[in-house]
Amino acid sequence: MALTDRSFKRLEKIVGRDNCTRRNEDLVCYAYDATGRQFLPDAVIFPADASEISRILILANEDRFFVTPRGTGSGMTGGAIPVQGGVVMVLSRLNHILEIDTDNLIARAEPGVITGDFHKAVEARGLFYPPDPSSAAFSTLGGNVAECAGGPRAVKYGVTRDYVLGLEVVLPTGQIMKTGVMTAKGVVGYDLTRLITGAEGTLGVITAITLRLLPLPEAVNTMVAFFGDMRIAAEAVSEIIRARIIPRTIEYIDKAAIGCVSSMMTSSLPADADAMLILEVDGAPDANAAAMTRLADICRQKGAIDVRVASDKEDAESIWRARKAISPALYVYGPDKINEDIVVPRSRIPEMVEKIQALKKETGLFMASFGHAGDGNIHVNIMLDKRDPAQVEKAEQAVDILFDETVALGGTISGEHGIGITKSAYMPKEVGQAEIALMKEIKALFDPRGILNPGKIFLSS
Amino acid sequence: MALTDRSFKRLEKIVGRDNCTRRNEDLVCYAYDATGRQFLPDAVIFPADASEISRILILANEDRFFVTPRGTGSGMTGGAIPVQGGVVMVLSRLNHILEIDTDNLIARAEPGVITGDFHKAVEARGLFYPPDPSSAAFSTLGGNVAECAGGPRAVKYGVTRDYVLGLEVVLPTGQIMKTGVMTAKGVVGYDLTRLITGAEGTLGVITAITLRLLPLPEAVNTMVAFFGDMRIAAEAVSEIIRARIIPRTIEYIDKAAIGCVSSMMTSSLPADADAMLILEVDGAPDANAAAMTRLADICRQKGAIDVRVASDKEDAESIWRARKAISPALYVYGPDKINEDIVVPRSRIPEMVEKIQALKKETGLFMASFGHAGDGNIHVNIMLDKRDPAQVEKAEQAVDILFDETVALGGTISGEHGIGITKSAYMPKEVGQAEIALMKEIKALFDPRGILNPGKIFLSS
Repeated sequence: MALTDRSFKRLEKIVGRDNCTRRNEDLVCYAYDATGRQFLPDAVIFPADASEISRILILANEDRFFVTPRGTGSGMTGGAIPVQGGVVMVLSRLNHILEIDTDNLIARAEPGVITGDFHKAVEARGLFYPPDPSSAAFSTLGGNVAECAGGPRAVKYGVTRDYVLGLEVVLPTGQIMKTGVMTAKGVVGYDLTRLITGAEGTLGVITAITLRLLPLPEAVNTMVAFFGDMRIAAEAVSEIIRARIIPRTIEYIDKAAIGCVSSMMTSSLPADADAMLILEVDGAPDANAAAMTRLADICRQKGAIDVRVASDKEDAESIWRARKAISPALYVYGPDKINEDIVVPRSRIPEMVEKIQALKKETGLFMASFGHAGDGNIHVNIMLDKRDPAQVEKAEQAVDILFDETVALGGTISGEHGIGITKSAYMPKEVGQAEIALMKEIKALFDPRGILNPGKIFLSS
Repeated sequence: MALTDRSFKRLEKIVGRDNCTRRNEDLVCYAYDATGRQFLPDAVIFPADASEISRILILANEDRFFVTPRGTGSGMTGGAIPVQGGVVMVLSRLNHILEIDTDNLIARAEPGVITGDFHKAVEARGLFYPPDPSSAAFSTLGGNVAECAGGPRAVKYGVTRDYVLGLEVVLPTGQIMKTGVMTAKGVVGYDLTRLITGAEGTLGVITAITLRLLPLPEAVNTMVAFFGDMRIAAEAVSEIIRARIIPRTIEYIDKAAIGCVSSMMTSSLPADADAMLILEVDGAPDANAAAMTRLADICRQKGAIDVRVASDKEDAESIWRARKAISPALYVYGPDKINEDIVVPRSRIPEMVEKIQALKKETGLFMASFGHAGDGNIHVNIMLDKRDPAQVEKAEQAVDILFDETVALGGTISGEHGIGITKSAYMPKEVGQAEIALMKEIKALFDPRGILNPGKIFLSS
């Protein structure tokens, strides 16, 4: 199913010559994502709107070529990589915030809007869009919806799915469809909105998104707690939840991860810190103050070495800049990264942390862990040199064990990164054969010729 | 597809003689729901567990009979009525709360658990399950999930969908399937959990539900505001949202609805009250106090006749008892009820209220409105005598106009009651033909022989 010259010419007619390319230097730019894997497409196109996308997909069905939709390629599991070639459809021209309705607390936006820009736009109106993947400065709303992105604030506010009210989607057959509602409630037929959310761009191309917003919290307070031992930090997290406090973030960072970003923070870290928690509360100032006191007390009771309250907004921002820089900064430890995104029930975090420590010792691999401890979501990063087959083999074995342990603890092998291509092989560890078969039938129903984002989620049978 | 003697005997073997019946006096008891419509089943069975349900559905496919799952029959659109005969499968024996995990803030329960009992059980542990349909005292969790129930607290906390993390479901083919996760995050394959939530028992029989819980709010404060005009009350609602306050409930009750339950309230109502709002906030006591003051100020500024703060828990409970009694109490105005469940964007409530008033005048029909104004969800009740064809015709015309207006205002024709049988004919007003066709294909995928809950959601083609 390689793209023919004739098909490329027909694509040119749809989007215009300036909006499609087959030059190798362009193809290379759209071959990769944050997994570091690369698959060269046959062409890259930049459609203007749903109508052009519809025509492209109809053509793909007629001429039989693959189409892989793409935002900014910040995905962690390969959702936007053209693994079977064909056309990469970049949605960067659909980058308008269509409406911010301050009376009804909703917004409508196109998929190419950068999430961080959207945050700023709604916050300027006194509103709040909670989902905040660490990639928010460069990832897009469309990609966030396709992968059902989470982020630090999910512990209190939930994930992208919880904010998507409705979608405009171009189905793989080219049909333009509207799903969902403009209101908080709505139960009219099957929930196609949430079926498409998190489907990783395999069931349709999202062309407009209706999002629910909240009032911007009055105040935010940030605190950092350092612990001499990772297990103790993990136990503090459980204790916080047990005390019925739901901070808006409970981030967890281990020593290795701290090490590579500590220079970005305004104050120096305690030398014997083996783990760090970032705790943040939002709401009315008085309630925040009370919660901060209780959180500090719990951390100290559990044995924190040091508890520091961010002095001002700038101080808090420096903490978050450091936290968000971890993922890219880890490359100082190795040229290649295997980034896993596991979730366990919150109370099982201490066990999981011990298992990761044991795995680190056993394999001798460099591993750094950090993540959203508040909802049990830990990002385990194995840094290695993939040119060394012995390291690769060890890393693959470690991932396999890690996933087995995760599922055994009642967890899930993907909290917010999706399955893409990197986790397809592991999905049967968690999801039964009957469920996978049903999902594949749904895919076939939406995309009978299999032209949209092939090779994702499911192992090819 | 009538149930044969042979099939009934095979059913008896699966569930035991004591757990199935064909006696007419039993059939009558399971022929109806809250719509008041009746369709007699051929038999009623009470399975014990997922395994028996699986065997029943396999048998239904073999012997070709219909199966309609049922909780307590409190549905408002006919979801649990056996419109095409066959077997009513009552889930009352699956009535166990399986687990309340206070460390991870989740619970697992069977579908037959009464929602109100579940509320009490988790609240006794200091936890909170927000969805609170007015029927909570007698409706079941399974029915709530099947219809994606809402309730007064949805304005702050969302609907049932937002709390369902995972399901055990018996597919129409008899396959027992687990969907979703035990954790707040999880993106492994397509979202079957939310596809089945709100599918009105047409895609599978829910046999276990994993629910997310919250910490029980520290304090709750309740206030009632009376207005001389419905439109002014509706404008106050918009003003509250515009002021970035999200109370946990903003209930709206018009004069006719007040009239039939006023005797249930501990204090007498102002004589000239034409509309009433019930406002409730929850959280830390200080924050609540501040919010209550602001809410009272807004109501007064907008022209409330009277604002009364509930003096204690008992006073607040009397207000809610009255509110929850409205729906059944309306029968004093007529032997039959058409209860519509529309939603408009919050800011359009004043317009909707005017349209309802106009419709009332035009048709001369008795109409009472009340509902969850905070999320734009209004229950419009037309009371009539269905033996009078002229009244029926007028009522049907009124509903038709009402739905047209709702959709024109950007709303939805069903906020929390589903489509069932009463709204199938109206669904095309809101949902496109392509979307409906896709939904029907999903139904056919799950239930190739069409044995489960036939005649619901979609008009038979």
